[in-house]
Amino acid sequence: MAGANTHRFDSDGVLLFGGLSHPDLADEIVDYLGIERSPSSVTRFSNDNFEVQLGVSVRKKDVFILQTLVAPVSDNLLELLMMLDIARTSGARSVHAIVPYYSYARSDKKDAPRISVAGRLIADLMIESGAQHIITMTLHSPQVHGFFNIHTDHLTAHSVFVDYFKQQDLSNCVVVSPDIGNAKRASKLARSLNVPLAIAEKKRLSDRSVEVTSILGEVRGKRVLLTDDEIATGGTILTVQGILKDHGAGPVTIVSTHGLFTGQAAARFDAVDDIDEIVVTDTVPLPPEHRPERLTVLSVGHIFGEVIRRTIMGESVGELFEFWPDT
Amino acid sequence: MAGANTHRFDSDGVLLFGGLSHPDLADEIVDYLGIERSPSSVTRFSNDNFEVQLGVSVRKKDVFILQTLVAPVSDNLLELLMMLDIARTSGARSVHAIVPYYSYARSDKKDAPRISVAGRLIADLMIESGAQHIITMTLHSPQVHGFFNIHTDHLTAHSVFVDYFKQQDLSNCVVVSPDIGNAKRASKLARSLNVPLAIAEKKRLSDRSVEVTSILGEVRGKRVLLTDDEIATGGTILTVQGILKDHGAGPVTIVSTHGLFTGQAAARFDAVDDIDEIVVTDTVPLPPEHRPERLTVLSVGHIFGEVIRRTIMGESVGELFEFWPDT
Amino acid sequence: MAGANTHRFDSDGVLLFGGLSHPDLADEIVDYLGIERSPSSVTRFSNDNFEVQLGVSVRKKDVFILQTLVAPVSDNLLELLMMLDIARTSGARSVHAIVPYYSYARSDKKDAPRISVAGRLIADLMIESGAQHIITMTLHSPQVHGFFNIHTDHLTAHSVFVDYFKQQDLSNCVVVSPDIGNAKRASKLARSLNVPLAIAEKKRLSDRSVEVTSILGEVRGKRVLLTDDEIATGGTILTVQGILKDHGAGPVTIVSTHGLFTGQAAARFDAVDDIDEIVVTDTVPLPPEHRPERLTVLSVGHIFGEVIRRTIMGESVGELFEFWPDT
Amino acid sequence: MAGANTHRFDSDGVLLFGGLSHPDLADEIVDYLGIERSPSSVTRFSNDNFEVQLGVSVRKKDVFILQTLVAPVSDNLLELLMMLDIARTSGARSVHAIVPYYSYARSDKKDAPRISVAGRLIADLMIESGAQHIITMTLHSPQVHGFFNIHTDHLTAHSVFVDYFKQQDLSNCVVVSPDIGNAKRASKLARSLNVPLAIAEKKRLSDRSVEVTSILGEVRGKRVLLTDDEIATGGTILTVQGILKDHGAGPVTIVSTHGLFTGQAAARFDAVDDIDEIVVTDTVPLPPEHRPERLTVLSVGHIFGEVIRRTIMGESVGELFEFWPDT
Amino acid sequence: MAGANTHRFDSDGVLLFGGLSHPDLADEIVDYLGIERSPSSVTRFSNDNFEVQLGVSVRKKDVFILQTLVAPVSDNLLELLMMLDIARTSGARSVHAIVPYYSYARSDKKDAPRISVAGRLIADLMIESGAQHIITMTLHSPQVHGFFNIHTDHLTAHSVFVDYFKQQDLSNCVVVSPDIGNAKRASKLARSLNVPLAIAEKKRLSDRSVEVTSILGEVRGKRVLLTDDEIATGGTILTVQGILKDHGAGPVTIVSTHGLFTGQAAARFDAVDDIDEIVVTDTVPLPPEHRPERLTVLSVGHIFGEVIRRTIMGESVGELFEFWPDT
Amino acid sequence: MAGANTHRFDSDGVLLFGGLSHPDLADEIVDYLGIERSPSSVTRFSNDNFEVQLGVSVRKKDVFILQTLVAPVSDNLLELLMMLDIARTSGARSVHAIVPYYSYARSDKKDAPRISVAGRLIADLMIESGAQHIITMTLHSPQVHGFFNIHTDHLTAHSVFVDYFKQQDLSNCVVVSPDIGNAKRASKLARSLNVPLAIAEKKRLSDRSVEVTSILGEVRGKRVLLTDDEIATGGTILTVQGILKDHGAGPVTIVSTHGLFTGQAAARFDAVDDIDEIVVTDTVPLPPEHRPERLTVLSVGHIFGEVIRRTIMGESVGELFEFWPDT
Repeated sequence: MAGANTHRFDSDGVLLFGGLSHPDLADEIVDYLGIERSPSSVTRFSNDNFEVQLGVSVRKKDVFILQTLVAPVSDNLLELLMMLDIARTSGARSVHAIVPYYSYARSDKKDAPRISVAGRLIADLMIESGAQHIITMTLHSPQVHGFFNIHTDHLTAHSVFVDYFKQQDLSNCVVVSPDIGNAKRASKLARSLNVPLAIAEKKRLSDRSVEVTSILGEVRGKRVLLTDDEIATGGTILTVQGILKDHGAGPVTIVSTHGLFTGQAAARFDAVDDIDEIVVTDTVPLPPEHRPERLTVLSVGHIFGEVIRRTIMGESVGELFEFWPDT
Repeated sequence: MAGANTHRFDSDGVLLFGGLSHPDLADEIVDYLGIERSPSSVTRFSNDNFEVQLGVSVRKKDVFILQTLVAPVSDNLLELLMMLDIARTSGARSVHAIVPYYSYARSDKKDAPRISVAGRLIADLMIESGAQHIITMTLHSPQVHGFFNIHTDHLTAHSVFVDYFKQQDLSNCVVVSPDIGNAKRASKLARSLNVPLAIAEKKRLSDRSVEVTSILGEVRGKRVLLTDDEIATGGTILTVQGILKDHGAGPVTIVSTHGLFTGQAAARFDAVDDIDEIVVTDTVPLPPEHRPERLTVLSVGHIFGEVIRRTIMGESVGELFEFWPDT
Repeated sequence: MAGANTHRFDSDGVLLFGGLSHPDLADEIVDYLGIERSPSSVTRFSNDNFEVQLGVSVRKKDVFILQTLVAPVSDNLLELLMMLDIARTSGARSVHAIVPYYSYARSDKKDAPRISVAGRLIADLMIESGAQHIITMTLHSPQVHGFFNIHTDHLTAHSVFVDYFKQQDLSNCVVVSPDIGNAKRASKLARSLNVPLAIAEKKRLSDRSVEVTSILGEVRGKRVLLTDDEIATGGTILTVQGILKDHGAGPVTIVSTHGLFTGQAAARFDAVDDIDEIVVTDTVPLPPEHRPERLTVLSVGHIFGEVIRRTIMGESVGELFEFWPDT
Repeated sequence: MAGANTHRFDSDGVLLFGGLSHPDLADEIVDYLGIERSPSSVTRFSNDNFEVQLGVSVRKKDVFILQTLVAPVSDNLLELLMMLDIARTSGARSVHAIVPYYSYARSDKKDAPRISVAGRLIADLMIESGAQHIITMTLHSPQVHGFFNIHTDHLTAHSVFVDYFKQQDLSNCVVVSPDIGNAKRASKLARSLNVPLAIAEKKRLSDRSVEVTSILGEVRGKRVLLTDDEIATGGTILTVQGILKDHGAGPVTIVSTHGLFTGQAAARFDAVDDIDEIVVTDTVPLPPEHRPERLTVLSVGHIFGEVIRRTIMGESVGELFEFWPDT
Repeated sequence: MAGANTHRFDSDGVLLFGGLSHPDLADEIVDYLGIERSPSSVTRFSNDNFEVQLGVSVRKKDVFILQTLVAPVSDNLLELLMMLDIARTSGARSVHAIVPYYSYARSDKKDAPRISVAGRLIADLMIESGAQHIITMTLHSPQVHGFFNIHTDHLTAHSVFVDYFKQQDLSNCVVVSPDIGNAKRASKLARSLNVPLAIAEKKRLSDRSVEVTSILGEVRGKRVLLTDDEIATGGTILTVQGILKDHGAGPVTIVSTHGLFTGQAAARFDAVDDIDEIVVTDTVPLPPEHRPERLTVLSVGHIFGEVIRRTIMGESVGELFEFWPDT
Repeated sequence: MAGANTHRFDSDGVLLFGGLSHPDLADEIVDYLGIERSPSSVTRFSNDNFEVQLGVSVRKKDVFILQTLVAPVSDNLLELLMMLDIARTSGARSVHAIVPYYSYARSDKKDAPRISVAGRLIADLMIESGAQHIITMTLHSPQVHGFFNIHTDHLTAHSVFVDYFKQQDLSNCVVVSPDIGNAKRASKLARSLNVPLAIAEKKRLSDRSVEVTSILGEVRGKRVLLTDDEIATGGTILTVQGILKDHGAGPVTIVSTHGLFTGQAAARFDAVDDIDEIVVTDTVPLPPEHRPERLTVLSVGHIFGEVIRRTIMGESVGELFEFWPDT
């Protein structure tokens, strides 16, 4: 995908504001577009309320607001909702929310009585606050797209990963999904890389512990690309890695769109020699102290930038993707 | 689950109307509840419009309207929307849609550019028309629950199947999912029956043809419970059954909540000797000419009846289910 | 009305999609506008669901979707709702529904208890699905305009009929309305043609049978222009024609905007010698086998085309019409 | 129709408030129901704003608010909207608007460019303000019912008029509609009284002047029941009466649901000897100075009272009427 | 603030309609913008309904509608709502309500049980009718801004007053607020003029009578600028003026954005010698017979005009004001 | 106000859930009502999302959810929104939010460009999530009531304070408001206690620093009741206390509904000898380490309990209060 500067782009009236969560990605995007990031500020009051202010007039502007839902998620969400509300009530021509990592996509079903399908609730809150268009990446399940009944671009980092791994020797490789529920996405990666697929059948016991009961498919003696949509504490991935080793698998490369590495994740990954690389994208910020040693971060800012460009210029986004986003 | 007549039920002010799609199930439910089915009529005009009339006053009544979305789906859907609209604008106290088979749950994601997530669209249309509460069973994916932002009971026939198969010898049995996407539901059946799981990895080429590339897990010499949420033409199921045979599997029992058997499905199933039984529920009507020979239909009317009873009496529905509905 | 090519028109960003109901009229309109019809496709699944796909990107485009509500009405309506939903959720700049024949306009009042005012319900469904502007023609009653609380252009074929008949000798002519309810529209035609009016007072017994009790006004020895908004089976029209003959009327010309000719209508009209011509427009498609022999079809595609042109160019539509649409 | 006191009625929690427009009808209704009218007050400020206060708590009450839209219509409408808003935001269990004369039903179509279909707009404003149920009588056209997409009871005084005239000798009588547009309602009266129908074909030139071009049907030597939905200045009615006289008609009785008698109407009617009686209902208040001499006012309070009773008790309203309301 | 003619302005597609309330201000604004006022007309029917018609096509136009809420407030409000509805349903590209004096802003809290917060209700009615943007001036309290959840410009005449008084000798001057509730606005005037502040603590007994209990701050021997947001009958202001005199204050200048002078206000002010000047703006029309003798009217048309210009050109409005509007 | 046990109360079907913010107040309320607090639980995931589960069935129940908006405000707000959403989508008969301290009421106006009126935004979010009724206390300004267009009970602790101070000698006492904006509330306290009022005119420089420019009214030698709606860091209050001392005021008692005492507030108050008592209510929880030494906490649980009781029993809440809530 070539840069915007090689494509026509009328940046007049286009503003991009970034919330507190991920200024680096915001900067990557505005660089791609050849515009300046618009300033905003947050003031926290002594009663723990906060107030957001957009720093330039949005009257009759196309306003893009970037916020990724990492910790502190509730604060970041509220800041996003306020920014949307300000744009809407201050005369913006159009209001777009860019949420590279939509954490609440994981709350996508009612798998216990009297819980909230929060992925839907928070979609409704964003729309109520003023979002007319959502741009997001690799939702936990493709059905979450349907939680938004407005213009929604559900993007994928698939091509970024495929481009990266196609430069490697994949002759004795297998893609492994750590979970039946996400196996569809893994099977696409396998197909694009032309390697076989295996699935770990796991039983989740709690948020932090899983029991893997078996591996469906052949892994013995093979290099493994172990792929999941998101890595938080890394618990699931590391458990599966252990089972894979028990089944005679070779070295493991971990592939994940959203690399959060919360808690002691970095140290836990660093302690496992059989993992030769961890490949993620920059949908979430990653401070140095949370980075595992063998980490590779692939940039996705140009994808968001290009989608903004096409949104403004009225060009197709669908044709950007070999596979339709992450389904 | 004992009958409503053994539980307290105040049927005063409760009405159940059935659309044209499935009067037998409506009768099963009202029998369970010990009430009469309320009459309604449909008139089709010469311009292909139709008009629905509810036959008794709904003023200050709790109105339940049953329609299952079988062919002709569009007509059945419109009839349902009109019935909801009538109840709403004629003074019902509450309006409940019972949709045992929500066909459009299959349109749950945007897996191609510029298509509609129709499962969400039609949810919105039902709500716009007056539905305040949806009662449905075994949605294609559990995320579809989140397409409804009103009171929704997503029921499951899981316990009906478990009760049925627990009476059989399952010592050399394996549950097979014909599809990675639905493997989670199959894995629950396997767990409840205490048997292993296998998964067919298929690639869907079109609505009617699939190519199965491999079987993940062990099936050789085992009796197979091949389970899917719905059977339409049976194409997928029969393809997988063939592959299973190639892999040395034993006799196959097919298990499915929604048994549509459209087109030549019945004849195609009858022609395969290795299928010893097909077990479905009565969420959809099945005329004699569409029934395969070795078909067993398990009733779910009592589940819907009991949920209505608990809705009226203010009792928990969640505690009815071992596993929370079909997730 | 001259062609668009003689008027300024900026077709950049204007797309017209046609549903399955009436591709000929869609082609007539795009010809008028000098643009190409945009492709769309419908896939029907084995469970009778269908999926619509728009064939080109609608991002930041003005999207016009044409569907006329002829049989199968429910399928055509659902297809329209899905197309609107796709346009809305795929980033269209504006979404316009063109419904030349809005069949449910006939369900415009609650003339029996517990029926739906479906003309209103379906208006709400179109708006919920994404329509921001409705363009329609000759609604059964002018009040149906008020069922839409969005931008609505209610067009009329009045001028097309007046232009056509003004070329004939009308010296001994009377306009007859077959129904009191529609007499207002007939009286306008009479006035524009400068001929007297008569009204048949009918009592509708059912959808297919009517009893005409009397003719109000003078018809003896006169050529009759018998006019109604729509002809379905032709039952009403033919009954009135018989009564007119009993009252000594001369030859009858039938005039109607929407010529459906359902069932055996063509044969029934062909069997009546006293009808010398049937003049309709092409708001609905008419396959050869449903065409009566003495049929004249006047085109209205240029009216829709001109309204689209003026919508895009910000010109008045009201000034197009001598009488304000069909009231 | 017997009094409520002969039917079961649980008046606990039922409140009826009356706006300033028609306290007498409010009293008639509460008398029928055997309850007290609840107090409310209006304060007008020096800037011409006003403030309404409901005089008793509405928490968890079924609140009925009566306002008829006579002059000053805008003030009366605003008072109604505020009363609805108060009930809604103060915790009422249900909020019902009783609007015996919905004046804006006359603005039911867009018969000129760039006017408002105010009958629809004001319906939306009532719903926005809190109305969950509308009870009204004899809307100018039956389609206006569809402007309300909430529970709506469109009542008719038909039976009151039929009962009244059936006590008279109707052997040489004709029902005349002064207007084609309203002839349907007149034809129902004719049918119920078993007398013929005639129609005056008029051309409205402005709000106050009409030109009648002909009488369709036979009136010579007959007693005339000239019927319209509403009488304001009486201009139309008196013009038609003159034409009827020219056509040799006998004495005229005027029949109308809504008798406003605005401006000099009373004096103008008093000056015409050929009018032997004017029969209206009390949907609007009529101060003595606006009453014509030969006026008979039939009460409709018991109809509204009975509909309230049935609404509270969950009984059918539809079965109250021989003909379904005024269609 | 220089005229629009010195700034860039693309007036193509911009229309301004004025309701009946204040044509002079509308003319002032269009003069500033260098455009013509678009015609509209109001017809009042004999039943006291009225109908508004916009005189030119609004298709794809940016439509500004000016109405100030002076007596008859209800009629003026209804006219405004209809105009908004017409613009919305006739294809306007954007719909803006300009309400220089929003009288119902005074109904901003629930200070008695079971009243309506009418300032909020009427905001909702405007939005429901079609307003997408509100431009108003000096709302009674700044919180009323929050009653509108759409694009809202709450303007102030602060700079107009400051410019006016800075030309005078203010060396022995005090700004007095007649009311604690409005003292914040007065304190801003004091600060901008660099003079001290005093506050009259009043107890409002009814709409027309107030009892002032004390003066907080020093007024003896000083010239007083007595400032309030609106003057209706002048009762409050004159009472405070009397108390100020009792406390030894010098001559009083009255300063108020909205000068209604209802009832006998003009005569009452003329009768008080100690008032040397009354300075208001032209947010409301003031017929000669209601003007006090010592009245100065400062124009605010250029402020509204400039805000329209910036709205169309996408320029900041916030930077127009030293203090953010009237808070 | 006597306990609920001395009044009729039908607690059947009434559930009260408490969020994490203030379990003590929830317990106080259920004790008053004589019911059990219903259990709920919160699980925080490793990605900082959380999931709330209500512990008992809410089907056909009246559900009250208590959450006070103290730090961490965003988390507490999200938890509240999820609880509302669960109740709404799980079949509750009615959903009530109890928010004793609505922190965002302070964001009640747009006093800078491009900020959010967050008090309105968050009101909309609560309604969108399912709240049908809000019960809150002492909103920062009374206009915030109008931000909620649903049933809202804005309660006051006025009577609790009056009862407390009436037991003391108030003969040489003055009520002081630290701020012009809140002086109205202070003036009510002064009136109820029959003592004079004084006002500090302050200029707020930032969230934490204020400059008091003068005291309006007489304080020398008097005992001061210094009253504000909320105390956070105490900065304002302590600054005013210093100025009062400079003006010769006697000992100061601080009176405030919401006592947050954030940061070093407790220590700062403890360091000032001239403050003899700080009187607050328990609308917010106060851990021991944040309590100043001379603190008195008055309970308001019985007020919330009584309002719940009256809501369920359909009794007036308005008559509970001498002054209508906090205006």
